[in-house]
Amino acid sequence: MTGKNYIGNQLSANGNKTFQTFNPELNTENSTVFTEASSEEIQEAVTLASKAFQEFRFISGKRKADFLNTIADEILALDDELVKMYCSETGLLEGRAKGERGRTVGQLRSFANLVAEGSWLEATIDLAQPNREPIPKLDIRKMLIPLGPVVVFGASNFPLAYSTAGGDTAAALAAGCPVIVKSHPMHAGTGELVASAIVKAAHKTGMPNGVFSNLNSSGIEVGQQLVVNPKVKAVGFTGSIKGGRALLDLAAKREEPIPVFAEMGSINPVVILPKALENRHQEIAKTYANSITLGTGQFCTNPGLILGIKSENLTSFINNLSDEIIKINPSCMLHPNIKKGYNANKEKVVSQENVTITANYEAEVENNYAQQTVVSVNGKDFLENSTLHLEVFGPFSMVVQCENENELEQIIANLEGQLTGTIISDENEVNNYTSLVAALQNRVGRIIFNGVPTGVEVCESMVHGGPYPASTDSRFTAVGINSIKRWVRPFSYQDWPNSLLPKELQNENPLDIFRTVEGKRTNQKI
Amino acid sequence: MTGKNYIGNQLSANGNKTFQTFNPELNTENSTVFTEASSEEIQEAVTLASKAFQEFRFISGKRKADFLNTIADEILALDDELVKMYCSETGLLEGRAKGERGRTVGQLRSFANLVAEGSWLEATIDLAQPNREPIPKLDIRKMLIPLGPVVVFGASNFPLAYSTAGGDTAAALAAGCPVIVKSHPMHAGTGELVASAIVKAAHKTGMPNGVFSNLNSSGIEVGQQLVVNPKVKAVGFTGSIKGGRALLDLAAKREEPIPVFAEMGSINPVVILPKALENRHQEIAKTYANSITLGTGQFCTNPGLILGIKSENLTSFINNLSDEIIKINPSCMLHPNIKKGYNANKEKVVSQENVTITANYEAEVENNYAQQTVVSVNGKDFLENSTLHLEVFGPFSMVVQCENENELEQIIANLEGQLTGTIISDENEVNNYTSLVAALQNRVGRIIFNGVPTGVEVCESMVHGGPYPASTDSRFTAVGINSIKRWVRPFSYQDWPNSLLPKELQNENPLDIFRTVEGKRTNQKI
Repeated sequence: MTGKNYIGNQLSANGNKTFQTFNPELNTENSTVFTEASSEEIQEAVTLASKAFQEFRFISGKRKADFLNTIADEILALDDELVKMYCSETGLLEGRAKGERGRTVGQLRSFANLVAEGSWLEATIDLAQPNREPIPKLDIRKMLIPLGPVVVFGASNFPLAYSTAGGDTAAALAAGCPVIVKSHPMHAGTGELVASAIVKAAHKTGMPNGVFSNLNSSGIEVGQQLVVNPKVKAVGFTGSIKGGRALLDLAAKREEPIPVFAEMGSINPVVILPKALENRHQEIAKTYANSITLGTGQFCTNPGLILGIKSENLTSFINNLSDEIIKINPSCMLHPNIKKGYNANKEKVVSQENVTITANYEAEVENNYAQQTVVSVNGKDFLENSTLHLEVFGPFSMVVQCENENELEQIIANLEGQLTGTIISDENEVNNYTSLVAALQNRVGRIIFNGVPTGVEVCESMVHGGPYPASTDSRFTAVGINSIKRWVRPFSYQDWPNSLLPKELQNENPLDIFRTVEGKRTNQKI
Repeated sequence: MTGKNYIGNQLSANGNKTFQTFNPELNTENSTVFTEASSEEIQEAVTLASKAFQEFRFISGKRKADFLNTIADEILALDDELVKMYCSETGLLEGRAKGERGRTVGQLRSFANLVAEGSWLEATIDLAQPNREPIPKLDIRKMLIPLGPVVVFGASNFPLAYSTAGGDTAAALAAGCPVIVKSHPMHAGTGELVASAIVKAAHKTGMPNGVFSNLNSSGIEVGQQLVVNPKVKAVGFTGSIKGGRALLDLAAKREEPIPVFAEMGSINPVVILPKALENRHQEIAKTYANSITLGTGQFCTNPGLILGIKSENLTSFINNLSDEIIKINPSCMLHPNIKKGYNANKEKVVSQENVTITANYEAEVENNYAQQTVVSVNGKDFLENSTLHLEVFGPFSMVVQCENENELEQIIANLEGQLTGTIISDENEVNNYTSLVAALQNRVGRIIFNGVPTGVEVCESMVHGGPYPASTDSRFTAVGINSIKRWVRPFSYQDWPNSLLPKELQNENPLDIFRTVEGKRTNQKI
């Protein structure tokens, strides 16, 4: 552990500003002193990335796969050192660290498989028709190519899977884009270890210097400088609405605006239909008490909003949920500042008019542990007071009691964009709520039947993203292999000589990939 | 011809501001008086579109195809009336009108085929694995769904193919998004006729009222009001960098930022390699004299920049090009304001230091006819003076004489983003210029070998778009069936009951489309 930045393959610490990470379980600072990247180091990382891009963008899918798999190997080789560092900087338990490491490694390998195979490039070929009337048709061939250097902002709540070598980085490298990570200050040590694994892998597999850099920072300046740098071509971010929007605004004001994919806040509405409430409110309450407190409520898919129609059953559900959630042992939050934010946001919501606290863990807790809370409010108040729509990041949820189905649907239709929406229904009950379901679909990226929103399967059919402010561009997902599409653009070759075309588009199809030729998908030669 | 707006299916003219279109050939105003849409009419169109979306987004691909094909039929049924109106508002000839009508109808039918077939929706299915360890895998299914109401800004230079029922509109309707067209003031009559065809088709095929509106405007206010309206979810624009950027900035400042796809300016660099210059400079000069003046130079793919290495052959080429271009008969521009802009931009470029005029059509021309011009400048001057990079919309091109290959490559690497780049090469000459080609590829959306950039084939492999400012989001194309991707987002269903899934995702695959099931592409049932 050096506390230094990786400017390409070089460790470097020329800046003046230093900081330490914090162990929230022990409530003490960790010992390593990290040096924030200086303006010169930032510029150097970007220059290297831009140069590396000129080589990296032409490196074959198989070699990129080798790089990604070697990153995964090197992360695993860090073994206990990584797990210990992770736990010491997050307050999360070893099981979570190992699970998240598995997910991170799995993501890297799935992108490796994708680019080794190669059909993802959407190679599309329309052949010439020299005798077409009134004008000849030319030979046109298209495939996806990388955008250029990508800046990735690590997430506080996923130190591995959505940080240094997480989903954004893996997707960008797979696409052929060099990556500059703005390391998250809360887990800079975990970041440095993972960065060292990436740098080792880049060296072992012969990747150009600058294909990856890792910059330390404790404030917002490093990130700002990166986003406005003209050589940076895209940004990936996971975090708060305020942070993501600030970067989006900065990128939009550039002389050359660039795409920003920010995965931001969500309160993940859950609608419990009347029959389901009637038949299994106890069971649902228990399931949701667990979902709300999972990972100390620090998931972007945490169910922060539960909607139902006023009834005795809904009242019973609220009571059950409150009873169940109080039984759960409080757990540690990621950082004292996260806990401070949790308490402040909770206070803000709770202090609004007509908000009833139905559960509040009041016993003393350890430093940095979160006290879980459930509140209840009427539909009318929720509709009229947008402060109640605020995400309270932590083990918190709000139950909204609607007057009737109309009010429930109106609330859903007027929700801000969300990552997920959930319908809890008895077998066929949902058949009677098609318009409600349609309204919910319009506000979310993923809709769940009789489940919980926490737990995001990493697979091709997963959409993690949604209408603003769930994400800044709902046309892309942040999870799954299709997230690679954020960092590429289509490119056409017209009448280009076969031998000079990239292999993906050559007549002989030397990579044996599936392509669309004359409108038909095939892996045949031409 | 009423001069009114279509607010959904209703003709309406409540505004106070009126304007007329102009016949540039006759140099007189056309007779119809158009009424600009009022704020209330704009709001009404958006409200109707938003309501229509709730129905339209669930309409089957086959019914949308019927709608699109009927629009094509109704456009053809307008027959001579449309052709005459088109010519009277643009100064373009009947042949061009008919050609562009053919392209417009072809685009509508190709989107109809796409959505009738249905596999474009990228249906992706991962099945549940209830026994997976450590946690069960859930059933997740994904497909593309429409974003919501789309505002389309018609292009001055494509009154049919990139205006009222043009590429953006056809793609958005095919996607399931209602469309509000901000009609181009220079061809409002053509716009009204085409709008009447769309409204008729909507009526005939039972589409919801509000699926389409057509708003007249002579200034920028109608467009601004549309882009900031919270119910509008995306914007398509074809036009100037200034106009596109203004809309992009407006959209970025909204509480909910929305995607803007603007296809803007381009000077379409053409590199002539030395051997090609040596062997066929005369032929190339002739070809390019035609390409530069095609359609009075009013194409976004017009070759405005020709790059070569200083030599006697390059000098001969410049002389040949200048001789050839002067022989061509000047032709009419779209509007007096377009001609004014052409002359002003030309003047701006020509007045820069060290710019030599090598061809200038100086004989008297008809009102609104453009005088073609070729200028020449040294590489160093071009590199140092960005005013020389300005697009001069019209029959104009600049030949840049570079000192050597290095300077040529440096110029290319520092170009603004472009729609196209062209390499003119002898058979194998290009093999020696891989790094130059790589630099060019990095600045464009389409690269052409031994051809001209004018002429954009409408096919799946075409990319029309490119790095900013060629377009605002290089990750999408404005031409070809994949342009539909601008208006859709992926959406996941988790554990959703089979009978309630959209047909595209049901086990039985009732639409018989190709889907990705468990990572394999298939049209089989599950």
